[in-house]
Amino acid sequence: MNGVRREPARRADYRYFTSITTRWNDNDQMMHVNNAVYYMYFDTAQTTFYIQRGLLDMRRTSPYVVAESGCRHFTEISYPDVLTIGIRVAKLGTSSVRLEMGLFRNDADIASAESYFVHVFIDPGTRRPITIPDEARAEFAAIAIGADRH
Amino acid sequence: MNGVRREPARRADYRYFTSITTRWNDNDQMMHVNNAVYYMYFDTAQTTFYIQRGLLDMRRTSPYVVAESGCRHFTEISYPDVLTIGIRVAKLGTSSVRLEMGLFRNDADIASAESYFVHVFIDPGTRRPITIPDEARAEFAAIAIGADRH
Amino acid sequence: MNGVRREPARRADYRYFTSITTRWNDNDQMMHVNNAVYYMYFDTAQTTFYIQRGLLDMRRTSPYVVAESGCRHFTEISYPDVLTIGIRVAKLGTSSVRLEMGLFRNDADIASAESYFVHVFIDPGTRRPITIPDEARAEFAAIAIGADRH
Amino acid sequence: MNGVRREPARRADYRYFTSITTRWNDNDQMMHVNNAVYYMYFDTAQTTFYIQRGLLDMRRTSPYVVAESGCRHFTEISYPDVLTIGIRVAKLGTSSVRLEMGLFRNDADIASAESYFVHVFIDPGTRRPITIPDEARAEFAAIAIGADRH
Repeated sequence: MNGVRREPARRADYRYFTSITTRWNDNDQMMHVNNAVYYMYFDTAQTTFYIQRGLLDMRRTSPYVVAESGCRHFTEISYPDVLTIGIRVAKLGTSSVRLEMGLFRNDADIASAESYFVHVFIDPGTRRPITIPDEARAEFAAIAIGADRH
Repeated sequence: MNGVRREPARRADYRYFTSITTRWNDNDQMMHVNNAVYYMYFDTAQTTFYIQRGLLDMRRTSPYVVAESGCRHFTEISYPDVLTIGIRVAKLGTSSVRLEMGLFRNDADIASAESYFVHVFIDPGTRRPITIPDEARAEFAAIAIGADRH
Repeated sequence: MNGVRREPARRADYRYFTSITTRWNDNDQMMHVNNAVYYMYFDTAQTTFYIQRGLLDMRRTSPYVVAESGCRHFTEISYPDVLTIGIRVAKLGTSSVRLEMGLFRNDADIASAESYFVHVFIDPGTRRPITIPDEARAEFAAIAIGADRH
Repeated sequence: MNGVRREPARRADYRYFTSITTRWNDNDQMMHVNNAVYYMYFDTAQTTFYIQRGLLDMRRTSPYVVAESGCRHFTEISYPDVLTIGIRVAKLGTSSVRLEMGLFRNDADIASAESYFVHVFIDPGTRRPITIPDEARAEFAAIAIGADRH
């Protein structure tokens, strides 16, 4: 589809992992998980990372907005699969971070889908971009992949 | 709300259990899981029971339709809670079965919500009610609660 | 299923109406709208009523919680049906209101499903029941069905 | 975020339009439509196009799979906004088509978000890519944007 298409990632390509159970109504009429539902999985995985790292207080406004997201699908998944999402930071800018994720079904080591999200940190009042706070930056750095990969 | 309101159920009141992870977008604007999402949990729990007991082949048409459902809410739940759903059969008729469920958040022993679903077994072609097949009846009987409770 | 089962309602049985477009992923693997999705329709219809009547400010905490809900299904619906939801108030208590809804597909005059929700008005701080405020009570009374029906 | 960032599209940049009503539970805890829900809107808009053009029979297997999708967000939307989705074909290949969409809230002429989906036509049996059938190709050509734009 898009020129040079590299192989799907493996679990070892990611730095943080979380599990998600699929739901009956995730499957669409074609007996596979609807592609929009993948984004709910990825969204949840990232939010879980933020919460577990102390970067998101659920009682407050989110410190970031999603500027951009995308997903490439390699193989289909279906309820009742149990999923693991791997996360890594691919690009850490001044006010934005690019999180890349792989979705693995059951015990598979090869990703069924890969996704990226660009989060822009904002001032909750003005909703204008701000510099990523130090503690968030440190947590992102901890799951960043080496420059050698790019 | 409805006359004599009994206490929420406990885990021991149910016979089959399955776990569900909540998702970020299950929470609504009020920071709690939206009530419609509870039905997705209950629907998934029941389907998981059917699949695990060999009563539902995901490649085929469902052997039943939902005729009726309901839910009573006692305490609120929120992502990132992890949920356990307990299931029991409360009434086993000729063509229909009433499944009752309790939803337990994290380690709680008292249900946050209780739900019931009435499934009517149908002929996939005519979509008319049929007698519940023997193997399904046996599985329902295995998680039925005693007549003494009612 | 439940003893005396009356006929599905008609549009004229309701007092307030709102339209909802179905979505591709509302359909489950059985090619019909998943039963849990019905509750999203009903939830949205009620919220639209509250907003249009000036009873709900989206920037504030909801003035009520859902204590109970239920749905009976008569005929199946599928994306791309366009739906109309009719609402009426069936019972107006001190702190709670019972809203009943009918779901009509496309041009049908007979409900495909009927639902009820019990809303309990609460103090946003203590989250304890309060008396339904006068302006909400007036709006509910305006869509209440006559005592002669019960 | 991504180098040269062009302006959001306008309605006139698209060739086919469909409307979608938002739902209460589309809003997440931050009072805006959750980004994953955007993909449900885009998915539905495309499916509606396929159905209206006679390219998708809901009783059969889908003639395509989603290989890739993406979304860029410009301004936030919230229930109870009513949305219009515009669609255009940006690239028509041998077995794949790239659909681009703009999401417009209420009467806005500037897109709140833009999305693309890559659909690969497949043989329903082998699930391997096939040449896009002539009738689908004709419908895509009818909403394609001129080469001069690229």
